[in-house]
Amino acid sequence: MPLPAEFHEIAKRVNNWGRWGEGDERGTLNLITDEVVCAAARTVASGRRVPLALPLQQDGVQTGMIPGRVNPLHTMVAINLEMFGPDTVATSDDTVTMGLQAGTHWDGLCHVSHGGRLYNGRPADSITGHGRAAFNGVEKAGPIVSRGVLLDVARARNVHRLDDDHAVTPEDLEAAEELAGITVRSGDIALVRTGQIQRYLTGDKHAYAHPSPGLSIRTPEWFHARDVAAVANDTLTFEIIPPEIEGLWLGVHALDLVEMGMPQGQNWNLEGLSEVCAEEGRYAFLLSAMPEPFVGATGTPVAPVAIF
Amino acid sequence: MPLPAEFHEIAKRVNNWGRWGEGDERGTLNLITDEVVCAAARTVASGRRVPLALPLQQDGVQTGMIPGRVNPLHTMVAINLEMFGPDTVATSDDTVTMGLQAGTHWDGLCHVSHGGRLYNGRPADSITGHGRAAFNGVEKAGPIVSRGVLLDVARARNVHRLDDDHAVTPEDLEAAEELAGITVRSGDIALVRTGQIQRYLTGDKHAYAHPSPGLSIRTPEWFHARDVAAVANDTLTFEIIPPEIEGLWLGVHALDLVEMGMPQGQNWNLEGLSEVCAEEGRYAFLLSAMPEPFVGATGTPVAPVAIF
Amino acid sequence: MPLPAEFHEIAKRVNNWGRWGEGDERGTLNLITDEVVCAAARTVASGRRVPLALPLQQDGVQTGMIPGRVNPLHTMVAINLEMFGPDTVATSDDTVTMGLQAGTHWDGLCHVSHGGRLYNGRPADSITGHGRAAFNGVEKAGPIVSRGVLLDVARARNVHRLDDDHAVTPEDLEAAEELAGITVRSGDIALVRTGQIQRYLTGDKHAYAHPSPGLSIRTPEWFHARDVAAVANDTLTFEIIPPEIEGLWLGVHALDLVEMGMPQGQNWNLEGLSEVCAEEGRYAFLLSAMPEPFVGATGTPVAPVAIF
Amino acid sequence: MPLPAEFHEIAKRVNNWGRWGEGDERGTLNLITDEVVCAAARTVASGRRVPLALPLQQDGVQTGMIPGRVNPLHTMVAINLEMFGPDTVATSDDTVTMGLQAGTHWDGLCHVSHGGRLYNGRPADSITGHGRAAFNGVEKAGPIVSRGVLLDVARARNVHRLDDDHAVTPEDLEAAEELAGITVRSGDIALVRTGQIQRYLTGDKHAYAHPSPGLSIRTPEWFHARDVAAVANDTLTFEIIPPEIEGLWLGVHALDLVEMGMPQGQNWNLEGLSEVCAEEGRYAFLLSAMPEPFVGATGTPVAPVAIF
Repeated sequence: MPLPAEFHEIAKRVNNWGRWGEGDERGTLNLITDEVVCAAARTVASGRRVPLALPLQQDGVQTGMIPGRVNPLHTMVAINLEMFGPDTVATSDDTVTMGLQAGTHWDGLCHVSHGGRLYNGRPADSITGHGRAAFNGVEKAGPIVSRGVLLDVARARNVHRLDDDHAVTPEDLEAAEELAGITVRSGDIALVRTGQIQRYLTGDKHAYAHPSPGLSIRTPEWFHARDVAAVANDTLTFEIIPPEIEGLWLGVHALDLVEMGMPQGQNWNLEGLSEVCAEEGRYAFLLSAMPEPFVGATGTPVAPVAIF
Repeated sequence: MPLPAEFHEIAKRVNNWGRWGEGDERGTLNLITDEVVCAAARTVASGRRVPLALPLQQDGVQTGMIPGRVNPLHTMVAINLEMFGPDTVATSDDTVTMGLQAGTHWDGLCHVSHGGRLYNGRPADSITGHGRAAFNGVEKAGPIVSRGVLLDVARARNVHRLDDDHAVTPEDLEAAEELAGITVRSGDIALVRTGQIQRYLTGDKHAYAHPSPGLSIRTPEWFHARDVAAVANDTLTFEIIPPEIEGLWLGVHALDLVEMGMPQGQNWNLEGLSEVCAEEGRYAFLLSAMPEPFVGATGTPVAPVAIF
Repeated sequence: MPLPAEFHEIAKRVNNWGRWGEGDERGTLNLITDEVVCAAARTVASGRRVPLALPLQQDGVQTGMIPGRVNPLHTMVAINLEMFGPDTVATSDDTVTMGLQAGTHWDGLCHVSHGGRLYNGRPADSITGHGRAAFNGVEKAGPIVSRGVLLDVARARNVHRLDDDHAVTPEDLEAAEELAGITVRSGDIALVRTGQIQRYLTGDKHAYAHPSPGLSIRTPEWFHARDVAAVANDTLTFEIIPPEIEGLWLGVHALDLVEMGMPQGQNWNLEGLSEVCAEEGRYAFLLSAMPEPFVGATGTPVAPVAIF
Repeated sequence: MPLPAEFHEIAKRVNNWGRWGEGDERGTLNLITDEVVCAAARTVASGRRVPLALPLQQDGVQTGMIPGRVNPLHTMVAINLEMFGPDTVATSDDTVTMGLQAGTHWDGLCHVSHGGRLYNGRPADSITGHGRAAFNGVEKAGPIVSRGVLLDVARARNVHRLDDDHAVTPEDLEAAEELAGITVRSGDIALVRTGQIQRYLTGDKHAYAHPSPGLSIRTPEWFHARDVAAVANDTLTFEIIPPEIEGLWLGVHALDLVEMGMPQGQNWNLEGLSEVCAEEGRYAFLLSAMPEPFVGATGTPVAPVAIF
């Protein structure tokens, strides 16, 4: 079933192909200029730091619903090994096997395609089975440090968490801006809180996964108008699932990643951040959310930190 | 062969057990106070960002010398998969298997033990084969964001890179402070540049590994006196290898990690940073170097960024 | 809670420590003599071959109940890669990550311990975190080829599959011998069919796992009296779960593996074999069930074949 | 560079597409009939068993030359874990990550393609990035049990091992038949010994890998004429490397796997077998070489056993 006309109309309006040159592989991350970073650093006032990553462990958020996206398998390869003889210094060492998008992560721009195309018109078949995306891999993103803004939609609506069938709309985002007392601007990284991750944190990963509130198909235009650099939230699929338009699965992914070239973050734990923002009375902060530079990868674990 | 008397004498002088309470698992990271972070944020002036991680790929720095510490094996589990039918949005997905200390990484405090003890007196056998360090795992570190200081020992000595048998001494560190025009202070993260990583970057990972310049057994006391929060460098083993004192393998590891509770970073690419510091004429910056919160792990990949 | 007196009494009666020498690591596999193999080969009459392994795939029998024992994650590392230029021969290549006991497998003799001891009195702490069992690893087993005998307990009882709380007793095994018209003898490999694996084959892996029929704590003595070389069945846990004696979890494992030194096989698909045995009217065959020689491993995948 | 005319001429002569039906995915394994197996079982006379697999361990035969084909990484996930409380039965458990063709293995028929085709005309692009070969995967092979014949080319030529540049020709195979006193016949599995694996066994895996003696481009026709079911040898690449015809890399692979549909085995340790055959004075035996049924895989570890 081809994508509906509505999708293609939005796609035209948010498309950024060529905006930063033919060869660009960073998309909206280009909007994070030196000035943006300086201004972001100036938001630091209390020195408080809030980490936003879930623990990486076998009992992670994955349920097996997404084939191959396995939770971290952490194994020891050495335990107090005295490599240099008895009574010497002993070392312990370990390894991990995991889906790169298994926990708190960034989607790389190559994570989805439609019509055989990736962001900036690259052919989708440039992703090969030899372990590599030739274009738009996460290692191309470069540093992700900017002003972060919490758009606390759940708090703005006075609910603990959004209903399962709640599509977060531009109106929701603006209500959250109003709560925050700030306006999202060019180069910002928007963190959209639904409260859905509480389901995982309280032990029900299946309820966390599906159905789930998430971003509406109407949000890419809003983010495009504000020229945000990236958006992350506290759900497994980022966008509302099942989708608003029947049959249009992953439409937001396609608009954000392919058309706009805007990285998405998922499974970010925004619960503590929500508390701190409310306490500090401010919703903007310096955000460092560095991708691990896996070469040719479609996504990457990230351990983001909000610095107040 | 038991550890030499010299080791035990230094150990007494740098020991931090109990300093932050019986239950502490963060060691010198406790020195990164809110004030330290605020001051670090104020160093940001140009907004320039310099990433310090090596690419994560199969052709990484590991040579097989350290059993089980495998380079990243990045594999695809889905390539342009149209999960929802033909002509829909297609997704690509991938996984990795790797040693947690295979690339640019932080050592967790549980990475080494001696005399059956970990940092803060925890029993070494609290690391079990069930994939977990019960104490001092990297997930306990919390956010690592502070002032970073580049101690560019190679540049201070006017060499491209230090000789293979060069042990970086306190005098070297002070010469680098003088070059930088700053004094390392409590809560700083010191990045010590030897230039050794050029060997890997130019294609000879065996020469990179061993023999290698690195930190002298005399440096832990210097770092202890300055109360630094953490130290990272651009070598595989961190300390000089083979060691200065015959038979005392990993003595610096034992002093830093076990006695002081001070995290070490290895395989950090400080080449670009050295250029930028020289250009900007300043060697202090805001450093974000967030550990991935692998539960019970002895180390973690890190994608550090210096923000000027 | 220490193991009950009943356990220790049986243990004394079935213990084989020292029987094949102080240094033995093969246990009852020593009972497979050249004569046994010759006789087994003479059972081949029709040339029919029945494979007994489950497919190795991500949708395997593991449910996450056993920490770290992950189903096979099969990933591609090359797909039609033309390494030598365009229009040359292209290769595809792949990797797997899996628990060694995730699918159809043999338990190695080092898989369980009690009272700090492995089979033949080896210290349990000879299994280290460095990826190795120093003693009794599966690579020590050598070739496993012998006469196989299907003890079709379900068929002998005229049921499709045994009830969840059915402990397979010596009386059940003798009824199955009677159905088969043969007597189990020294060096045989006994395959005990409960029918439980149908639960997995029809899509309910949770029901397959637990609760489950399985071997009674009374069977080790029976197998010891017959001097069988190994026993395999079609359940996840081999023995009845939950156990017959409250608190005595894995008692059969401890008797078979530690006391007798007799390898156990689990997750063997005996459904097709049951059909063929009934059709052929004979329940003995040549069985080849070669362990993959993973060095120092506690278990191994196996692809057994019954040859009629 | 397209494949040379010579290749295409041989390809025509050995092609088996359609021979066992349009839908066939087993190729020459179809030649192993019940009669063949019965006759093979009748060769068993002494009951002696000779295993042919290399140990599976991190220090395996792979050197990194073939991207992604990693040696086994064996890690513990539980060591003497008392899951059910103190003084109960303790379990140890482990996992592996490995290239499916890393050690002693069978190539699946889908391992190579040319001109966009797999065996029996299947499209090469039926191998997807989603971890699956839709056609000709190793799980389709079924049981591999037949008469094995050692063609001991090295012994027939009175050398310890063949020279690095020795291409094993049909004349060599016939000399080995003469030494063996038997003629290879339909359904046999031919094991061709070069002695090259001694290089690995004595510690030089690089010398083992390349250059290496191996099968000549002239051998597929010989095997086709004899209607053998499969061929394995004791080298890394199976065929001579570098190839006899400049630029024709993996030509033998393409003829055997794609045109004939004949599985190839590599890294088989035939040293002990050579000794036993010479001692027993016979070169034919019952061979069990069961593929592990990895679904959609291009190859599989195998632990073959020769039964005399």
